[in-house]
Amino acid sequence: MDRSKLRQFANLLVRVGGNVQPGQPVVVGCDVANAGIARLIAECAYDAGASEVIMNWSDEVCSQMKFLRAEEKVFDVYPDWAVRRFGHWDESGAAYLHVDSDDPDLMKNVAPERLRRHGIASSLATKEHMRAVMANSVRWSVIGAPSGAWAAKVFPGVPGEEALERLWEAIFEASRMNEGPDPVETWRRHNENFKARLDFLNGHKFRALKFRNSIGTDISVELPEGHVWCGGGDRARDGILFNPNIPTEEVYTMPLKSGVNGRAVGSKPLQFRGKLIENFELIFRDGKVVSYKAEKNGAILKNILENDEGASYLGEVALVADTSPIARMGLMFYNTLFDENAACHFALGKAYPSCIEGGGDKSEEELRDLGANDSLVHEDFMVGTADMSITGVSRDGTETPVFVRGDFISI
Amino acid sequence: MDRSKLRQFANLLVRVGGNVQPGQPVVVGCDVANAGIARLIAECAYDAGASEVIMNWSDEVCSQMKFLRAEEKVFDVYPDWAVRRFGHWDESGAAYLHVDSDDPDLMKNVAPERLRRHGIASSLATKEHMRAVMANSVRWSVIGAPSGAWAAKVFPGVPGEEALERLWEAIFEASRMNEGPDPVETWRRHNENFKARLDFLNGHKFRALKFRNSIGTDISVELPEGHVWCGGGDRARDGILFNPNIPTEEVYTMPLKSGVNGRAVGSKPLQFRGKLIENFELIFRDGKVVSYKAEKNGAILKNILENDEGASYLGEVALVADTSPIARMGLMFYNTLFDENAACHFALGKAYPSCIEGGGDKSEEELRDLGANDSLVHEDFMVGTADMSITGVSRDGTETPVFVRGDFISI
Repeated sequence: MDRSKLRQFANLLVRVGGNVQPGQPVVVGCDVANAGIARLIAECAYDAGASEVIMNWSDEVCSQMKFLRAEEKVFDVYPDWAVRRFGHWDESGAAYLHVDSDDPDLMKNVAPERLRRHGIASSLATKEHMRAVMANSVRWSVIGAPSGAWAAKVFPGVPGEEALERLWEAIFEASRMNEGPDPVETWRRHNENFKARLDFLNGHKFRALKFRNSIGTDISVELPEGHVWCGGGDRARDGILFNPNIPTEEVYTMPLKSGVNGRAVGSKPLQFRGKLIENFELIFRDGKVVSYKAEKNGAILKNILENDEGASYLGEVALVADTSPIARMGLMFYNTLFDENAACHFALGKAYPSCIEGGGDKSEEELRDLGANDSLVHEDFMVGTADMSITGVSRDGTETPVFVRGDFISI
Repeated sequence: MDRSKLRQFANLLVRVGGNVQPGQPVVVGCDVANAGIARLIAECAYDAGASEVIMNWSDEVCSQMKFLRAEEKVFDVYPDWAVRRFGHWDESGAAYLHVDSDDPDLMKNVAPERLRRHGIASSLATKEHMRAVMANSVRWSVIGAPSGAWAAKVFPGVPGEEALERLWEAIFEASRMNEGPDPVETWRRHNENFKARLDFLNGHKFRALKFRNSIGTDISVELPEGHVWCGGGDRARDGILFNPNIPTEEVYTMPLKSGVNGRAVGSKPLQFRGKLIENFELIFRDGKVVSYKAEKNGAILKNILENDEGASYLGEVALVADTSPIARMGLMFYNTLFDENAACHFALGKAYPSCIEGGGDKSEEELRDLGANDSLVHEDFMVGTADMSITGVSRDGTETPVFVRGDFISI
């Protein structure tokens, strides 16, 4: 891939993603296999005035080896120093820039119990940090960059170098890198386009949304009073705009935990730690999943739902037009950062505090009292189709179309 | 380089270097550019029964960028979480395996003041850990692996890939990888060969050694009562043998801090953070450097000597035969791990506690009272030549030849 284009991409992450400010420390998370792009990010961050760029390297080969070969006890421990590290970075006002290049199948042969125990240990230990991230107390952003294994999964049968190149092209297309000479300017416009949709939804303050399509989804999702639709750029607590995800095409808010009733049918497979849960559906009553089925990997779905109390309630409802670039590409990325932008979706588990008025300043108890779901998990699943209709129901009972045939009514 | 040979090398580090035991955690320190060898080390460590292999990645490109571009204040801080990380690893009984591939010129354009301040901050913060390392409370080992920049420095003008390959060959030759089919067995014999020399020196309990050669070195180095000559494999506090350095050809002990008198002339350039101090000499009186000169980079030598009080006293005296493999190769590696095995040398700064009887259990005060030097620095410089003579002086005044014409008398 052309170095100047890679540098533009790195710069997009720094300027639009984290919106790094002079004097700010920056933490770059990246796999060692993508050191090239990580170094470009570091360069761009210093150009933006970063006080220091701290590299937080990972290596998926060694991670997999650990999950396959380390002693059992390792997976119940998340070391104290690593918790303090996040605390130190959070307190110093760091921006977190992350490059995601995970092999979707990396953990395929790992005992799910090990992943579950590690997931619980790390979620509990890093709860404060994750709260800071989800409440936008810190600025953070994630982009994708291909690894050999990921490219081979997306383009099976294509020779290695060509598959890498094609995945770069797909990531650039999805990330709106090809819409003009200056991606930073493209994203400024992209963020403006979000505004009209957010203004419509936040202006209506719907009591509920009703989703219906031809594959069986028929569900009413109540929204809590004071809910906020978010999307595109977010404003961090310091008032500075940033884009947590590149790409992003969704507008989203939190459902009322106890107000979800009906049937949600998965419109695409749910990828979880290298396994695909296929042709599944969930039945909700008063917010809770009361039954479910899946043609494939139902046991994994069960595992997700049983993680904790909140894992069987919704924490996010997101609207994505069937005409969005990623939906149009029709490519399965096997990566949520991309695939969640291909269709309307819900998430099981934790709600984003920023999706309710003043949520970033509220305690866990206050958020719960307002109807927000809490959990150690946050797992997206797609329900959107080309014939999805969504109707907004106001407090006075008035019904307003929101989606017709898979796309926003023209707002 | 042939993968099976690389794997043998990784295995040498695991089995002979750290001597990893079943159930032991292992910390692997490596540059991201050498991820291939790091992963082989991780594999071999799990084969040896490691409970967990923790990767501690670095990237010299980003390190250099930080030293050149980060804010000044960064260099006075060593974060608390990083101190606790070492504490956690030390307490869990981890073995530290490190792959050194530093570009010798990496810090050439960095302001020395930044390096000095960073050096002081990190030395002070990691004092406990460094004490554990130097006292062999933990097992640790360092090998070399080429980087492009390092290979280009050692073989200037040789094309990239060929230079890398030649540096691998040189590292293997220096590390005694070519002496037989099984490097682990070669090193068992190598460690046995050290024993005769150590028995001779430790049996004599010399009061002093007198060094003299034709380039002007003429110096008497007193040794403290209870000094211990070490070399080759060390025994960690848990009684398990390990080899902190691969390669290693030196036998070494600590001088009596106040007992060094005379003139030491550098026989090879002293490489310090990418710069070469050339044609230098130091005059010692009652242990302390009272004057010095250098034809090139005398200011850097001054900087070293002024680091702290102990930096102008010796902390190590080491004997290396002029017939050792690395001396025979006649190659300047620009890396102390290798170059210190090319000639007899002294070190300015901290003495190894293991070089005095029971030193690993003694406090800083006790070590000082026994005549050991303490400092935040430990900087080797070469004095050995092909005509070096060394004479041992016993407590009763008897003189015994130790080195004649650059080599051990036949022991």
